[in-house]
Amino acid sequence: MSPSPPAVAPEYTLAATLGFELLEVGPERATGRFAADDRVKQPLGLVHGGAFAAFAESLASVATYEAVASDGLIAVGLSNHTSFLRPILAGTVHADGRRRHRGRATWLWEVDFSDDEGDLCAVSRVTLAVRPAPGG
Amino acid sequence: MSPSPPAVAPEYTLAATLGFELLEVGPERATGRFAADDRVKQPLGLVHGGAFAAFAESLASVATYEAVASDGLIAVGLSNHTSFLRPILAGTVHADGRRRHRGRATWLWEVDFSDDEGDLCAVSRVTLAVRPAPGG
Amino acid sequence: MSPSPPAVAPEYTLAATLGFELLEVGPERATGRFAADDRVKQPLGLVHGGAFAAFAESLASVATYEAVASDGLIAVGLSNHTSFLRPILAGTVHADGRRRHRGRATWLWEVDFSDDEGDLCAVSRVTLAVRPAPGG
Amino acid sequence: MSPSPPAVAPEYTLAATLGFELLEVGPERATGRFAADDRVKQPLGLVHGGAFAAFAESLASVATYEAVASDGLIAVGLSNHTSFLRPILAGTVHADGRRRHRGRATWLWEVDFSDDEGDLCAVSRVTLAVRPAPGG
Repeated sequence: MSPSPPAVAPEYTLAATLGFELLEVGPERATGRFAADDRVKQPLGLVHGGAFAAFAESLASVATYEAVASDGLIAVGLSNHTSFLRPILAGTVHADGRRRHRGRATWLWEVDFSDDEGDLCAVSRVTLAVRPAPGG
Repeated sequence: MSPSPPAVAPEYTLAATLGFELLEVGPERATGRFAADDRVKQPLGLVHGGAFAAFAESLASVATYEAVASDGLIAVGLSNHTSFLRPILAGTVHADGRRRHRGRATWLWEVDFSDDEGDLCAVSRVTLAVRPAPGG
Repeated sequence: MSPSPPAVAPEYTLAATLGFELLEVGPERATGRFAADDRVKQPLGLVHGGAFAAFAESLASVATYEAVASDGLIAVGLSNHTSFLRPILAGTVHADGRRRHRGRATWLWEVDFSDDEGDLCAVSRVTLAVRPAPGG
Repeated sequence: MSPSPPAVAPEYTLAATLGFELLEVGPERATGRFAADDRVKQPLGLVHGGAFAAFAESLASVATYEAVASDGLIAVGLSNHTSFLRPILAGTVHADGRRRHRGRATWLWEVDFSDDEGDLCAVSRVTLAVRPAPGG
Protein backbone atom coordinates (compact mmCIF):
# COMPACT_ATOMS: atom_id res chain seq x y z
CA MET A 1 0.00 0.00 0.00
CA SER A 2 1.39 3.40 -0.85
CA PRO A 3 1.77 5.99 1.89
CA SER A 4 -0.75 8.79 2.25
CA PRO A 5 0.11 12.01 0.44
CA PRO A 6 1.50 14.70 2.72
CA ALA A 7 -1.05 16.94 4.38
CA VAL A 8 0.80 20.00 3.13
CA ALA A 9 2.39 20.15 -0.32
CA PRO A 10 6.15 20.65 0.02
CA GLU A 11 6.13 24.09 -1.59
CA TYR A 12 3.78 25.50 1.07
CA THR A 13 5.43 24.23 4.27
CA LEU A 14 7.36 26.33 6.77
CA ALA A 15 10.60 24.95 5.37
CA ALA A 16 9.75 26.13 1.86
CA THR A 17 8.33 29.43 3.08
CA LEU A 18 11.62 30.25 4.80
CA GLY A 19 13.83 28.98 1.97
CA PHE A 20 15.34 26.01 3.79
CA GLU A 21 17.49 23.74 1.66
CA LEU A 22 18.59 20.26 2.69
CA LEU A 23 21.81 19.03 1.11
CA GLU A 24 22.94 15.73 2.60
CA VAL A 25 20.41 13.71 4.59
CA GLY A 26 21.72 10.49 6.10
CA PRO A 27 21.11 8.52 9.27
CA GLU A 28 24.27 9.86 10.96
CA ARG A 29 24.92 13.18 9.30
CA ALA A 30 22.69 15.77 7.72
CA THR A 31 23.57 19.15 6.26
CA GLY A 32 21.76 22.05 4.70
CA ARG A 33 21.64 25.82 4.33
CA PHE A 34 19.43 28.83 3.94
CA ALA A 35 19.96 32.34 2.69
CA ALA A 36 20.03 35.22 5.18
CA ASP A 37 17.07 36.84 3.43
CA ASP A 38 14.58 39.25 4.95
CA ARG A 39 12.09 36.41 5.48
CA VAL A 40 14.36 34.77 8.10
CA LYS A 41 15.31 38.02 9.87
CA GLN A 42 14.06 40.06 12.75
CA PRO A 43 13.53 43.81 12.30
CA LEU A 44 17.12 44.80 13.21
CA GLY A 45 18.44 42.79 10.26
CA LEU A 46 19.84 39.79 12.11
CA VAL A 47 18.85 36.24 11.29
CA HIS A 48 15.98 35.45 13.69
CA GLY A 49 16.83 32.97 16.44
CA GLY A 50 13.75 31.00 15.48
CA ALA A 51 15.15 30.41 12.00
CA PHE A 52 18.09 28.47 13.45
CA ALA A 53 15.78 26.49 15.71
CA ALA A 54 13.35 25.73 12.89
CA PHE A 55 16.08 24.65 10.51
CA ALA A 56 17.61 22.30 13.06
CA GLU A 57 14.17 20.83 13.73
CA SER A 58 13.58 20.22 10.02
CA LEU A 59 17.00 18.75 9.42
CA ALA A 60 16.86 16.33 12.35
CA SER A 61 13.24 15.35 11.71
CA VAL A 62 13.71 14.59 8.04
CA ALA A 63 16.94 12.68 8.63
CA THR A 64 15.41 10.60 11.40
CA TYR A 65 12.19 9.99 9.52
CA GLU A 66 14.02 8.79 6.43
CA ALA A 67 16.10 6.42 8.55
CA VAL A 68 13.18 4.79 10.35
CA ALA A 69 10.27 4.98 7.89
CA SER A 70 11.06 1.65 6.27
CA ASP A 71 10.57 0.02 9.68
CA GLY A 72 7.06 1.45 9.95
CA LEU A 73 8.18 4.12 12.40
CA ILE A 74 7.79 7.88 12.53
CA ALA A 75 9.81 10.62 14.22
CA VAL A 76 8.14 13.17 16.48
CA GLY A 77 9.98 16.19 17.89
CA LEU A 78 10.31 16.21 21.68
CA SER A 79 12.49 19.25 22.24
CA ASN A 80 14.74 21.78 20.58
CA HIS A 81 17.37 23.76 22.43
CA THR A 82 19.20 26.34 20.36
CA SER A 83 21.92 28.67 21.66
CA PHE A 84 22.85 31.81 19.75
CA LEU A 85 26.54 32.63 19.66
CA ARG A 86 27.16 35.16 16.91
CA PRO A 87 24.73 37.11 14.75
CA ILE A 88 24.44 36.60 11.00
CA LEU A 89 23.44 39.58 8.89
CA ALA A 90 24.06 38.46 5.32
CA GLY A 91 25.16 35.60 3.11
CA THR A 92 24.28 31.98 3.72
CA VAL A 93 23.62 30.09 6.96
CA HIS A 94 25.29 26.66 6.85
CA ALA A 95 24.02 23.78 9.00
CA ASP A 96 25.91 20.64 9.89
CA GLY A 97 24.04 18.03 11.91
CA ARG A 98 25.41 14.95 13.62
CA ARG A 99 23.33 12.21 15.16
CA ARG A 100 24.63 11.71 18.68
CA HIS A 101 22.25 8.98 19.84
CA ARG A 102 20.09 6.35 18.21
CA GLY A 103 18.00 4.77 20.93
CA ARG A 104 15.07 2.46 20.79
CA ALA A 105 12.66 5.27 21.60
CA THR A 106 14.60 8.52 21.14
CA TRP A 107 17.17 9.98 18.77
CA LEU A 108 19.33 13.00 19.52
CA TRP A 109 21.00 15.31 16.99
CA GLU A 110 23.36 18.23 17.44
CA VAL A 111 23.43 20.83 14.69
CA ASP A 112 26.14 23.46 14.26
CA PHE A 113 25.40 26.64 12.31
CA SER A 114 28.13 28.72 10.73
CA ASP A 115 28.35 31.76 8.49
CA ASP A 116 30.22 32.17 5.19
CA GLU A 117 33.47 32.76 7.12
CA GLY A 118 33.06 29.39 8.86
CA ASP A 119 32.50 30.96 12.29
CA LEU A 120 30.20 29.05 14.61
CA CYS A 121 27.02 31.11 15.06
CA ALA A 122 24.50 28.82 16.78
CA VAL A 123 24.19 25.28 18.10
CA SER A 124 21.02 23.21 18.40
CA ARG A 125 20.21 20.03 20.24
CA VAL A 126 17.14 18.27 18.86
CA THR A 127 15.54 15.27 20.58
CA LEU A 128 13.02 13.16 18.71
CA ALA A 129 10.77 10.32 19.74
CA VAL A 130 10.63 7.36 17.39
CA ARG A 131 7.29 5.57 17.44
CA PRO A 132 5.20 3.19 15.37
CA ALA A 133 3.36 5.03 12.60
CA PRO A 134 -0.35 5.46 13.33
CA GLY A 135 -2.17 2.62 11.63
CA GLY A 136 1.21 1.28 10.57
CA MET B 1 17.91 61.85 18.14
CA SER B 2 15.50 59.43 16.56
CA PRO B 3 16.39 55.76 16.33
CA SER B 4 17.61 54.26 13.06
CA PRO B 5 14.95 52.72 10.87
CA PRO B 6 14.79 48.94 11.12
CA ALA B 7 17.04 47.04 8.74
CA VAL B 8 14.06 44.99 7.57
CA ALA B 9 10.64 46.51 7.05
CA PRO B 10 8.13 44.88 9.43
CA GLU B 11 6.11 43.32 6.62
CA TYR B 12 9.10 41.33 5.33
CA THR B 13 10.46 39.84 8.56
CA LEU B 14 10.21 36.21 9.66
CA ALA B 15 7.43 37.17 12.07
CA ALA B 16 5.32 38.66 9.28
CA THR B 17 6.19 35.89 6.84
CA LEU B 18 4.84 33.30 9.28
CA GLY B 19 1.79 35.33 10.32
CA PHE B 20 2.83 35.97 13.92
CA GLU B 21 0.57 38.34 15.84
CA LEU B 22 1.50 39.98 19.14
CA LEU B 23 -1.41 40.92 21.37
CA GLU B 24 -0.26 42.14 24.77
CA VAL B 25 3.39 43.14 25.14
CA GLY B 26 4.40 44.22 28.61
CA PRO B 27 7.52 43.93 30.77
CA GLU B 28 6.11 41.02 32.79
CA ARG B 29 3.59 39.38 30.50
CA ALA B 30 3.33 39.05 26.74
CA THR B 31 0.78 37.20 24.65
CA GLY B 32 0.14 36.53 21.00
CA ARG B 33 -1.07 33.99 18.48
CA PHE B 34 -0.68 32.63 14.99
CA ALA B 35 -2.90 30.64 12.67
CA ALA B 36 -2.09 26.98 12.04
CA ASP B 37 -1.69 27.70 8.32
CA ASP B 38 0.34 25.70 5.84
CA ARG B 39 3.21 28.20 6.15
CA VAL B 40 3.87 27.16 9.76
CA LYS B 41 3.48 23.43 9.17
CA GLN B 42 5.69 20.49 8.32
CA PRO B 43 4.67 18.14 5.49
CA LEU B 44 2.53 15.85 7.68
CA GLY B 45 0.22 18.73 8.53
CA LEU B 46 1.37 19.43 12.08
CA VAL B 47 2.51 22.85 13.23
CA HIS B 48 6.32 22.78 12.83
CA GLY B 49 8.27 22.71 16.08
CA GLY B 50 10.31 25.64 14.80
CA ALA B 51 7.19 27.78 14.61
CA PHE B 52 6.68 27.50 18.37
CA ALA B 53 10.35 28.25 19.00
CA ALA B 54 10.35 31.21 16.64
CA PHE B 55 7.19 32.68 18.11
CA ALA B 56 8.52 32.44 21.65
CA GLU B 57 11.75 34.09 20.54
CA SER B 58 9.85 36.97 18.92
CA LEU B 59 7.53 37.44 21.86
CA ALA B 60 10.27 37.51 24.49
CA SER B 61 12.60 39.64 22.39
CA VAL B 62 10.04 42.30 21.60
CA ALA B 63 8.76 42.44 25.18
CA THR B 64 12.26 42.74 26.61
CA TYR B 65 13.39 45.25 24.01
CA GLU B 66 10.41 47.49 24.65
CA ALA B 67 11.07 47.36 28.39
CA VAL B 68 14.74 48.31 28.21
CA ALA B 69 15.03 50.49 25.09
CA SER B 70 14.37 53.73 26.94
CA ASP B 71 17.45 53.00 29.07
CA GLY B 72 19.62 52.78 25.97
CA LEU B 73 19.73 48.98 26.13
CA ILE B 74 19.01 46.23 23.64
CA ALA B 75 17.97 42.60 24.05
CA VAL B 76 19.92 39.81 22.34
CA GLY B 77 18.74 36.21 22.32
CA LEU B 78 21.04 33.79 24.15
CA SER B 79 19.05 30.57 24.00
CA ASN B 80 15.67 29.06 23.25
CA HIS B 81 14.53 25.70 24.60
CA THR B 82 11.16 24.54 23.37
CA SER B 83 9.50 21.25 24.33
CA PHE B 84 6.69 19.83 22.22
CA LEU B 85 3.85 18.23 24.15
CA ARG B 86 0.87 17.84 21.85
CA PRO B 87 0.53 18.41 18.11
CA ILE B 88 -1.62 21.15 16.63
CA LEU B 89 -3.21 20.52 13.24
CA ALA B 90 -5.69 23.34 12.82
CA GLY B 91 -7.09 26.48 14.37
CA THR B 92 -5.06 29.04 16.23
CA VAL B 93 -1.90 28.68 18.33
CA HIS B 94 -2.14 30.79 21.48
CA ALA B 95 0.98 31.98 23.30
CA ASP B 96 1.18 33.22 26.86
CA GLY B 97 4.55 34.45 28.07
CA ARG B 98 5.63 35.29 31.59
CA ARG B 99 8.88 36.99 32.51
CA ARG B 100 10.48 34.85 35.19
CA HIS B 101 13.67 36.84 35.76
CA ARG B 102 14.82 40.40 35.21
CA GLY B 103 18.52 40.50 35.94
CA ARG B 104 21.08 43.15 35.33
CA ALA B 105 22.49 41.25 32.36
CA THR B 106 19.92 38.58 31.47
CA TRP B 107 16.17 38.21 31.28
CA LEU B 108 14.32 34.90 31.21
CA TRP B 109 10.84 34.25 29.84
CA GLU B 110 8.68 31.14 29.84
CA VAL B 111 6.04 30.86 27.14
CA ASP B 112 3.14 28.40 27.15
CA PHE B 113 1.44 27.45 23.90
CA SER B 114 -2.08 26.10 23.78
CA ASP B 115 -4.61 25.14 21.14
CA ASP B 116 -8.20 26.31 20.73
CA GLU B 117 -9.32 23.78 23.37
CA GLY B 118 -6.93 25.32 25.88
CA ASP B 119 -4.69 22.25 26.03
CA LEU B 120 -1.00 22.90 26.62
CA CYS B 121 0.89 22.00 23.43
CA ALA B 122 4.41 23.37 23.88
CA VAL B 123 6.52 25.28 26.40
CA SER B 124 9.50 27.53 25.66
CA ARG B 125 12.20 29.00 27.83
CA VAL B 126 13.88 32.02 26.26
CA THR B 127 16.98 33.65 27.75
CA LEU B 128 18.07 37.07 26.55
CA ALA B 129 21.11 39.18 27.22
CA VAL B 130 20.47 42.85 27.93
CA ARG B 131 23.31 45.10 26.81
CA PRO B 132 24.04 48.72 25.98
CA ALA B 133 22.91 49.56 22.45
CA PRO B 134 25.84 49.86 20.03
CA GLY B 135 26.78 53.51 19.83
CA GLY B 136 24.18 54.20 22.50
CA MET C 1 5.26 -10.67 44.22
CA SER C 2 7.04 -7.96 46.11
CA PRO C 3 9.29 -5.57 44.22
CA SER C 4 13.05 -6.00 44.32
CA PRO C 5 14.86 -4.09 47.02
CA PRO C 6 16.54 -0.93 45.75
CA ALA C 7 20.04 -1.39 44.41
CA VAL C 8 21.28 1.38 46.70
CA ALA C 9 20.01 1.80 50.23
CA PRO C 10 18.27 5.17 50.59
CA GLU C 11 20.84 6.50 53.05
CA TYR C 12 23.71 6.08 50.56
CA THR C 13 22.20 7.62 47.43
CA LEU C 14 23.15 10.96 45.90
CA ALA C 15 19.98 12.48 47.33
CA ALA C 16 20.91 11.46 50.87
CA THR C 17 24.57 12.38 50.39
CA LEU C 18 23.59 15.93 49.45
CA GLY C 19 20.88 16.28 52.11
CA PHE C 20 17.89 16.44 49.80
CA GLU C 21 14.52 16.38 51.52
CA LEU C 22 11.23 15.73 49.76
CA LEU C 23 8.16 17.24 51.38
CA GLU C 24 5.06 16.83 49.23
CA VAL C 25 5.18 14.28 46.41
CA GLY C 26 2.07 14.07 44.30
CA PRO C 27 1.29 13.40 40.65
CA GLU C 28 0.79 17.09 39.84
CA ARG C 29 2.84 18.92 42.44
CA ALA C 30 5.99 18.06 44.33
CA THR C 31 7.99 20.14 46.77
CA GLY C 32 11.15 19.78 48.80
CA ARG C 33 14.20 21.57 50.15
CA PHE C 34 17.85 21.24 51.02
CA ALA C 35 20.20 23.18 53.24
CA ALA C 36 22.82 25.42 51.66
CA ASP C 37 25.59 23.41 53.34
CA ASP C 38 29.17 23.08 52.18
CA ARG C 39 28.38 19.74 50.56
CA VAL C 40 26.14 21.42 47.96
CA LYS C 41 28.46 24.34 47.29
CA GLN C 42 31.26 25.21 44.91
CA PRO C 43 34.51 26.64 46.29
CA LEU C 44 33.37 30.28 46.22
CA GLY C 45 30.58 29.50 48.66
CA LEU C 46 27.63 29.56 46.29
CA VAL C 47 25.20 26.67 45.96
CA HIS C 48 26.55 24.60 43.04
CA GLY C 49 24.48 24.72 39.88
CA GLY C 50 24.51 20.96 39.82
CA ALA C 51 22.73 20.83 43.17
CA PHE C 52 19.69 22.56 41.70
CA ALA C 53 19.75 20.29 38.65
CA ALA C 54 20.14 17.16 40.78
CA PHE C 55 17.35 18.14 43.15
CA ALA C 56 14.94 18.83 40.30
CA GLU C 57 15.83 15.48 38.77
CA SER C 58 15.15 13.68 42.04
CA LEU C 59 11.90 15.49 42.69
CA ALA C 60 10.45 14.91 39.24
CA SER C 61 11.66 11.32 39.06
CA VAL C 62 10.24 10.30 42.41
CA ALA C 63 6.93 12.04 41.80
CA THR C 64 6.52 10.48 38.37
CA TYR C 65 7.62 7.05 39.54
CA GLU C 66 5.14 7.05 42.41
CA ALA C 67 2.35 8.06 40.05
CA VAL C 68 2.97 5.34 37.47
CA ALA C 69 4.44 2.43 39.45
CA SER C 70 1.07 0.87 40.20
CA ASP C 71 0.53 0.56 36.44
CA GLY C 72 3.74 -1.43 36.06
CA LEU C 73 5.60 1.53 34.62
CA ILE C 74 8.87 3.23 35.47
CA ALA C 75 10.16 6.76 34.90
CA VAL C 76 13.50 7.36 33.21
CA GLY C 77 15.08 10.80 32.95
CA LEU C 78 15.46 12.11 29.40
CA SER C 79 16.74 15.62 30.00
CA ASN C 80 17.25 18.30 32.60
CA HIS C 81 17.60 21.98 31.76
CA THR C 82 18.34 24.24 34.68
CA SER C 83 18.84 28.00 34.48
CA PHE C 84 20.56 29.88 37.29
CA LEU C 85 19.09 33.27 38.13
CA ARG C 86 20.38 34.34 41.52
CA PRO C 87 23.05 32.81 43.77
CA ILE C 88 22.24 31.29 47.14
CA LEU C 89 24.94 31.47 49.82
CA ALA C 90 23.16 30.40 52.99
CA GLY C 91 19.91 29.18 54.46
CA THR C 92 17.57 26.75 52.77
CA VAL C 93 16.89 26.11 49.10
CA HIS C 94 13.17 25.63 48.49
CA ALA C 95 11.87 23.69 45.49
CA ASP C 96 8.38 23.81 44.06
CA GLY C 97 7.64 21.49 41.15
CA ARG C 98 4.63 21.44 38.89
CA ARG C 99 3.84 18.73 36.38
CA ARG C 100 3.17 20.48 33.08
CA HIS C 101 2.52 17.44 30.90
CA ARG C 102 1.41 13.86 31.41
CA GLY C 103 1.71 12.12 28.08
CA ARG C 104 1.51 8.48 27.18
CA ALA C 105 5.28 8.24 26.84
CA THR C 106 6.72 11.39 28.43
CA TRP C 107 6.08 13.58 31.45
CA LEU C 108 7.39 17.10 31.86
CA TRP C 109 7.93 18.97 35.13
CA GLU C 110 8.99 22.54 35.84
CA VAL C 111 10.65 23.21 39.17
CA ASP C 112 11.16 26.66 40.71
CA PHE C 113 13.86 27.20 43.32
CA SER C 114 13.75 30.06 45.78
CA ASP C 115 15.76 31.22 48.77
CA ASP C 116 14.54 32.05 52.27
CA GLU C 117 13.42 35.49 51.08
CA GLY C 118 11.20 33.88 48.46
CA ASP C 119 13.27 35.18 45.55
CA LEU C 120 13.39 32.95 42.48
CA CYS C 121 16.94 31.59 42.16
CA ALA C 122 16.78 28.85 39.53
CA VAL C 123 14.30 27.09 37.26
CA SER C 124 14.48 23.53 35.94
CA ARG C 125 12.65 21.70 33.21
CA VAL C 126 12.79 17.93 33.61
CA THR C 127 11.54 15.54 30.93
CA LEU C 128 11.02 11.88 31.77
CA ALA C 129 10.17 8.87 29.69
CA VAL C 130 7.53 6.56 31.11
CA ARG C 131 8.01 2.94 30.10
CA PRO C 132 7.00 -0.56 31.11
CA ALA C 133 9.13 -1.83 33.99
CA PRO C 134 11.70 -4.39 32.87
CA GLY C 135 10.19 -7.80 33.45
CA GLY C 136 6.99 -6.03 34.53
CA MET D 1 47.36 41.28 46.65
CA SER D 2 46.58 37.62 47.07
CA PRO D 3 43.08 36.37 46.32
CA SER D 4 40.67 35.62 49.12
CA PRO D 5 40.64 32.06 50.37
CA PRO D 6 37.74 30.02 49.04
CA ALA D 7 34.57 30.18 51.09
CA VAL D 8 34.46 26.39 51.19
CA ALA D 9 37.57 24.28 51.58
CA PRO D 10 38.05 22.05 48.52
CA GLU D 11 37.55 18.85 50.47
CA TYR D 12 34.04 19.85 51.60
CA THR D 13 32.54 21.05 48.32
CA LEU D 14 29.91 19.24 46.26
CA ALA D 15 32.61 18.15 43.83
CA ALA D 16 34.63 16.50 46.58
CA THR D 17 31.55 15.07 48.26
CA LEU D 18 30.57 13.29 45.05
CA GLY D 19 34.09 12.20 44.15
CA PHE D 20 34.56 14.34 41.06
CA GLU D 21 38.04 14.29 39.58
CA LEU D 22 39.30 16.79 37.01
CA LEU D 23 42.06 15.55 34.74
CA GLU D 24 42.86 18.04 31.99
CA VAL D 25 41.64 21.60 32.43
CA GLY D 26 42.42 23.94 29.58
CA PRO D 27 40.72 26.90 27.91
CA GLU D 28 39.46 24.78 24.99
CA ARG D 29 39.26 21.25 26.35
CA ALA D 30 38.60 19.86 29.79
CA THR D 31 38.26 16.27 30.89
CA GLY D 32 37.56 14.40 34.10
CA ARG D 33 35.86 11.40 35.62
CA PHE D 34 34.04 10.04 38.63
CA ALA D 35 33.36 6.59 39.98
CA ALA D 36 29.86 5.14 39.70
CA ASP D 37 29.65 4.81 43.48
CA ASP D 38 26.51 4.74 45.59
CA ARG D 39 26.94 8.43 46.43
CA VAL D 40 26.26 9.41 42.78
CA LYS D 41 23.38 7.00 42.26
CA GLN D 42 19.62 6.99 42.60
CA PRO D 43 17.90 4.16 44.48
CA LEU D 44 17.59 1.84 41.47
CA GLY D 45 21.35 1.73 41.12
CA LEU D 46 21.79 3.98 38.09
CA VAL D 47 24.06 7.00 38.09
CA HIS D 48 21.77 9.92 39.01
CA GLY D 49 21.05 12.36 36.19
CA GLY D 50 22.07 15.17 38.49
CA ALA D 51 25.56 13.73 38.80
CA PHE D 52 26.16 14.21 35.09
CA ALA D 53 24.74 17.73 35.22
CA ALA D 54 26.79 18.64 38.28
CA PHE D 55 30.00 17.27 36.83
CA ALA D 56 29.56 19.19 33.57
CA GLU D 57 28.87 22.35 35.57
CA SER D 58 32.05 21.89 37.61
CA LEU D 59 34.19 21.06 34.60
CA ALA D 60 33.05 24.02 32.51
CA SER D 61 33.12 26.45 35.43
CA VAL D 62 36.63 25.56 36.53
CA ALA D 63 38.00 25.58 33.00
CA THR D 64 36.43 28.95 32.23
CA TYR D 65 37.43 30.47 35.54
CA GLU D 66 41.04 29.42 35.11
CA ALA D 67 41.10 30.90 31.62
CA VAL D 68 39.74 34.30 32.59
CA ALA D 69 40.87 34.84 36.19
CA SER D 70 44.14 36.50 35.20
CA ASP D 71 42.08 39.18 33.43
CA GLY D 72 40.22 39.97 36.65
CA LEU D 73 37.12 38.12 35.46
CA ILE D 74 34.95 35.40 36.98
CA ALA D 75 32.67 32.77 35.45
CA VAL D 76 29.07 32.42 36.59
CA GLY D 77 26.84 29.56 35.43
CA LEU D 78 23.83 30.65 33.38
CA SER D 79 22.36 27.33 32.35
CA ASN D 80 22.97 23.61 32.16
CA HIS D 81 21.12 21.29 29.81
CA THR D 82 21.93 17.64 30.17
CA SER D 83 20.37 14.83 28.13
CA PHE D 84 20.54 11.24 29.33
CA LEU D 85 21.13 8.64 26.65
CA ARG D 86 22.20 5.41 28.30
CA PRO D 87 22.32 4.42 31.97
CA ILE D 88 25.57 3.72 33.81
CA LEU D 89 25.47 1.18 36.65
CA ALA D 90 29.11 0.54 37.45
CA GLY D 91 32.67 1.48 36.63
CA THR D 92 33.83 4.98 35.84
CA VAL D 93 32.02 7.89 34.20
CA HIS D 94 34.32 9.68 31.75
CA ALA D 95 33.74 13.31 30.78
CA ASP D 96 35.15 15.09 27.77
CA GLY D 97 34.39 18.79 27.45
CA ARG D 98 34.94 21.06 24.49
CA ARG D 99 34.58 24.82 24.53
CA ARG D 100 32.34 25.72 21.63
CA HIS D 101 32.20 29.49 22.10
CA ARG D 102 34.33 32.13 23.77
CA GLY D 103 32.39 35.36 23.62
CA ARG D 104 32.95 38.66 25.31
CA ALA D 105 30.21 37.98 27.83
CA THR D 106 29.38 34.28 27.57
CA TRP D 107 31.22 30.99 27.08
CA LEU D 108 29.58 27.75 25.99
CA TRP D 109 30.87 24.23 26.60
CA GLU D 110 29.60 20.86 25.44
CA VAL D 111 30.50 17.86 27.56
CA ASP D 112 30.20 14.23 26.46
CA PHE D 113 29.92 11.47 29.06
CA SER D 114 30.83 7.88 28.29
CA ASP D 115 31.14 4.64 30.19
CA ASP D 116 34.07 2.24 30.37
CA GLU D 117 33.05 0.72 27.01
CA GLY D 118 33.28 4.15 25.40
CA ASP D 119 29.55 4.38 24.74
CA LEU D 120 28.06 7.85 24.87
CA CYS D 121 25.78 8.03 27.94
CA ALA D 122 24.93 11.72 28.39
CA VAL D 123 25.60 15.11 26.82
CA SER D 124 25.62 18.49 28.57
CA ARG D 125 25.57 22.02 27.28
CA VAL D 126 26.81 24.53 29.85
CA THR D 127 26.57 28.29 29.32
CA LEU D 128 28.52 30.63 31.57
CA ALA D 129 28.58 34.39 31.94
CA VAL D 130 32.00 35.99 32.18
CA ARG D 131 32.03 39.14 34.28
CA PRO D 132 34.40 41.41 36.17
CA ALA D 133 35.23 39.98 39.59
CA PRO D 134 33.45 41.83 42.41
CA GLY D 135 35.83 44.44 43.73
CA GLY D 136 38.27 43.39 40.99
